[in-house]
Amino acid sequence: MYDYKYLENFVTSLFIHAGCSEESAHLVAKILLAAEMRGIPSHGMIRVKDYYHHCKIGRINTNPHVKIVHESPGTAVVDGDNAIGVVPAVYSMKLAIEKANKCGTGWVATKNSNHYGIAGFYAMMALEHDMIGISLTNANPTVAPTFSVDRLLGTNPIAVAIPTLKQPPFVADFATTPVARGKLSVAQKKGENIPTGWAQDQYGNPTEDAGIIEKGGAMLPLGGDRLHGSHKGYCLGAIVDILSAVLSGANFGPWVPPSVAFLPVLDETVGEGTGHFFGALRIDGFMKPLEFRTRMDHWIETMRNSRNVEGLPNVMIPGDPERENEERMKKSGISIIPAVAKDLMAIAEEAGVKFEIR
Amino acid sequence: MYDYKYLENFVTSLFIHAGCSEESAHLVAKILLAAEMRGIPSHGMIRVKDYYHHCKIGRINTNPHVKIVHESPGTAVVDGDNAIGVVPAVYSMKLAIEKANKCGTGWVATKNSNHYGIAGFYAMMALEHDMIGISLTNANPTVAPTFSVDRLLGTNPIAVAIPTLKQPPFVADFATTPVARGKLSVAQKKGENIPTGWAQDQYGNPTEDAGIIEKGGAMLPLGGDRLHGSHKGYCLGAIVDILSAVLSGANFGPWVPPSVAFLPVLDETVGEGTGHFFGALRIDGFMKPLEFRTRMDHWIETMRNSRNVEGLPNVMIPGDPERENEERMKKSGISIIPAVAKDLMAIAEEAGVKFEIR
Repeated sequence: MYDYKYLENFVTSLFIHAGCSEESAHLVAKILLAAEMRGIPSHGMIRVKDYYHHCKIGRINTNPHVKIVHESPGTAVVDGDNAIGVVPAVYSMKLAIEKANKCGTGWVATKNSNHYGIAGFYAMMALEHDMIGISLTNANPTVAPTFSVDRLLGTNPIAVAIPTLKQPPFVADFATTPVARGKLSVAQKKGENIPTGWAQDQYGNPTEDAGIIEKGGAMLPLGGDRLHGSHKGYCLGAIVDILSAVLSGANFGPWVPPSVAFLPVLDETVGEGTGHFFGALRIDGFMKPLEFRTRMDHWIETMRNSRNVEGLPNVMIPGDPERENEERMKKSGISIIPAVAKDLMAIAEEAGVKFEIR
Repeated sequence: MYDYKYLENFVTSLFIHAGCSEESAHLVAKILLAAEMRGIPSHGMIRVKDYYHHCKIGRINTNPHVKIVHESPGTAVVDGDNAIGVVPAVYSMKLAIEKANKCGTGWVATKNSNHYGIAGFYAMMALEHDMIGISLTNANPTVAPTFSVDRLLGTNPIAVAIPTLKQPPFVADFATTPVARGKLSVAQKKGENIPTGWAQDQYGNPTEDAGIIEKGGAMLPLGGDRLHGSHKGYCLGAIVDILSAVLSGANFGPWVPPSVAFLPVLDETVGEGTGHFFGALRIDGFMKPLEFRTRMDHWIETMRNSRNVEGLPNVMIPGDPERENEERMKKSGISIIPAVAKDLMAIAEEAGVKFEIR
């Protein structure tokens, strides 16, 4: 078990060593650890290896000049200058909040970025400003649109954070596929099958093979098949891709650059880097914040107090499982799976940064 | 078969007779017929009966004063004054477009409204202004959140319309459930079963009974069950409900008033009427419109030209099926199912408006 501070110092030191500014390196640590704390380890310490190597081989620019390249009072496009994704993402969300202060809402599309960690982190930045926060990103193509055998979209997540009064905030953060890509890898490592409705083989047939992506298969959009509304999941993934990348000037669809080091960068591009989209909506652009927060508590209590199906857990509010995980982790510390810890040790030795297996 | 003009005149005359202004009555005709033309008859002529009776019994205000009750440069809340839903909806979407002209984007939450027809109609209003349009609405509670046996959310649709160059526009318009409520009614009328994953019985068990809603059952969120991501469909329905109603001051969750005449109005309310949410984003707030439109065509062609699963149709772009239906209807005219035509005849006789069964 590691305590938060130990890992924060380690990751920060590592990325300073990789060439990032102290501020950027600290941001990387903060966002990767937010994923660990919130129970999304697929976006946590496991990413250090690829982020680090991308910095070292120059696939990520460690000395970026992130800037606004187009704007109106309430909107902007930000050029991430190929920085490590968390840097332009935080810059862009702050800008959306600033613009919302003037216009009621602010919206920023970001191009020339890289993998930005958990989408929910940025949406949640709006909460302390009495705003609703929205964060979208496109991602490596692993998903086939309904009826297609080609992998043309990422798991393109949607995150929305909404302020409350006494209840914890509403924080939805979900891939537009039945499950995140990481769940297939976990099943594969355990030698387990996956349920049908998660993926298809290279011909578009249903499959239970967790390793199907490496065999030319694809993940399915939320809904699974046409009969159960997969075209709606495809719509959602499409909307995220278009707002994040078509509108910002980033690569879209099958051209989104891989966020993992073992995959080659594509020769062909249709834009610059990976794309994100951020929104901030001032509550008082619509209603007195206290009134809204009181109404939100009422909404949440209505759902939470509803009757659950016998044998199933109580109804949850988006953000509940992540917050509960965070509370557990604060007490217990953060555990890192041995394979990831081993990778971190190797990088630490290479970089000359102290790290120990705990 | 009816031609468009015939039905337009009929519906307009009928709602003038019901007490609406000529302008409002014409809007009702336009939006109900847009649903018929686009192949969504569940939101077309079948709604005339309930809309009409709601006007006649005073459940809908036929002489409304729709007005802005709160605003910032880029946002507003509109009070629909219990008008027939299409009236405040068009007013609100126009306002969102107007605000986008000043701020880059405009966002309007609408309360004290009623059923507004197809969500896509309002999103599409943005297209001719070089804007992306968004339209959301809450609806009668028929959906149980993941793990719940209670019907606490509507099928809460999301519509997004995006401009293109040579390709037809991208128009997504979908319920946040595997299928629209209407599909269960159709199966029920035909005496057919429904696939599992669409609905649950009163205890939360999977069911194939198309009539389950009347027996205390519920529709399921997009995803169907927890294993296939129904909690994500629940998140989507929740976000639509919160933006449309918690933020506007309308009724949310189980308190959304019924849009059909045979259901009683609830005694308890938590706001005013039904809620909607509208957004308009100026393309040139982000990018030169010509560049964006060219990129959108590229996006669409990439999806459309992908390889389809053998035996399945070609990959579709959101809006394709509706547009194809519209083209067919323009040639063939609009057919109305006998039961609906019979209802219309009865109303026509009551109102003294000419109508014939064709």
